[in-house]
Amino acid sequence: MYVDAVLVPAETDGIEPGEFGAVAVIDVLRATTTIVTALENGARGVVPVGSPDDARAWRAAGPDVVLGGERGARALAGFDLGNSPLEYGPERVAGKLVVMTTTNGTAAFERARSVAGGAAVIAACLRNAQAAAQRLRQLAGAQGGGALIVCAGTDGRFSAEDAYAAAVVLEAMAREGPLELGDGAQAALRMAGTVASPRAALRATRHGRKLVQLGFETDVDFCAKVSVSDTVPTLVSGVLVREGSGPARGE
Amino acid sequence: MYVDAVLVPAETDGIEPGEFGAVAVIDVLRATTTIVTALENGARGVVPVGSPDDARAWRAAGPDVVLGGERGARALAGFDLGNSPLEYGPERVAGKLVVMTTTNGTAAFERARSVAGGAAVIAACLRNAQAAAQRLRQLAGAQGGGALIVCAGTDGRFSAEDAYAAAVVLEAMAREGPLELGDGAQAALRMAGTVASPRAALRATRHGRKLVQLGFETDVDFCAKVSVSDTVPTLVSGVLVREGSGPARGE
Repeated sequence: MYVDAVLVPAETDGIEPGEFGAVAVIDVLRATTTIVTALENGARGVVPVGSPDDARAWRAAGPDVVLGGERGARALAGFDLGNSPLEYGPERVAGKLVVMTTTNGTAAFERARSVAGGAAVIAACLRNAQAAAQRLRQLAGAQGGGALIVCAGTDGRFSAEDAYAAAVVLEAMAREGPLELGDGAQAALRMAGTVASPRAALRATRHGRKLVQLGFETDVDFCAKVSVSDTVPTLVSGVLVREGSGPARGE
Repeated sequence: MYVDAVLVPAETDGIEPGEFGAVAVIDVLRATTTIVTALENGARGVVPVGSPDDARAWRAAGPDVVLGGERGARALAGFDLGNSPLEYGPERVAGKLVVMTTTNGTAAFERARSVAGGAAVIAACLRNAQAAAQRLRQLAGAQGGGALIVCAGTDGRFSAEDAYAAAVVLEAMAREGPLELGDGAQAALRMAGTVASPRAALRATRHGRKLVQLGFETDVDFCAKVSVSDTVPTLVSGVLVREGSGPARGE
């Protein structure tokens, strides 16, 4: 199976929509980790939206809407939750529809959706690496195409932590059968090969250091756990739902 | 000194113009290698332009204009030279002004110029790695800022060969004094650390394989020679000139 990774979302401009049979978005610190955690803890769905105001407009949708997100790793006024996965416990999100806006994650999903054409888009991180890898293989195999990983990056720039997580997903895919690697996928694997541990990998990056400075050290350690979740968020009509479940809204 | 690399040109959108004290563009297969070779062989200057028609318009500038470039690694109708550095011998370029358009190199220079603000822009490749590293340190040090390397990539996507060449330049810079590395620079160094030789590095990439298939094997080997040239092309009023020489035109 052919598999490649874009190291920053803007790279998708160089890809024909529909070229890949399945697309995974990775924003390991912290958007996709938080999305996986929210669905694992019983959220009906997670809607990635562009701006804080777009999110606030969802209040009108009903009482079971929870607003989450951040800008520059900081909480947003009028929101129920920030972007720490540890806030998304069952007591806050079970049965709820989480509407989420993050600095980099949302833009990456937009890019992923547009480059996917009709193909499936999932969310991946370290915590669901093994499950996401299996799902990518299934989805891409069923389409007869390859798989693409979109690294969300930070403010349009490359983030080493997303490339690291991409490498962990790629390694899990490689354990299931032979892969033909594009340059971006090769690069991610080469970078990751020289790193001591997932925890060290995340803490060594610019964004990882910033989160630790802001007091989110526990978050970084939570995000660094590998393949502890089998939840694979899948985009259905603009809503990320738990793999196997139906869409969260009547679309 | 702080130093970073953007792995694709579009990443410069995330950087404030003038944030860096000097910027180097790398398109090792083959634009920046060809530019270094042309200046080394006596060209008065190299003008990077956007389109083949832009280049053709330069014919009117006089008899000593030579048009060079490619699209998709192929020669262009009505042009004097392609994008093979081996074509840019003294018999073709000495005393001439080379007007050049390439698929990825030109766009990377545009990006570099815009992100540089008033700071210097140079061209780097493997052949001038050591000289380019010294010049980057001098220029960035004089400005009191850091240095940025812009990898040209291929059609907006990441190219492993440019990241590899960036790593070789970074290693040369590190030999001259301590560096603080951004995520992109760290990534390039990590990737390069696992590669056997410059020749193997270039041949293993998608674009390197394509060039070998098209019969440009000798070009790839020429581009893989490290630090054999002390020519550092520097952008002055839109013209790349040999370091230390004046601008090629009366601007």
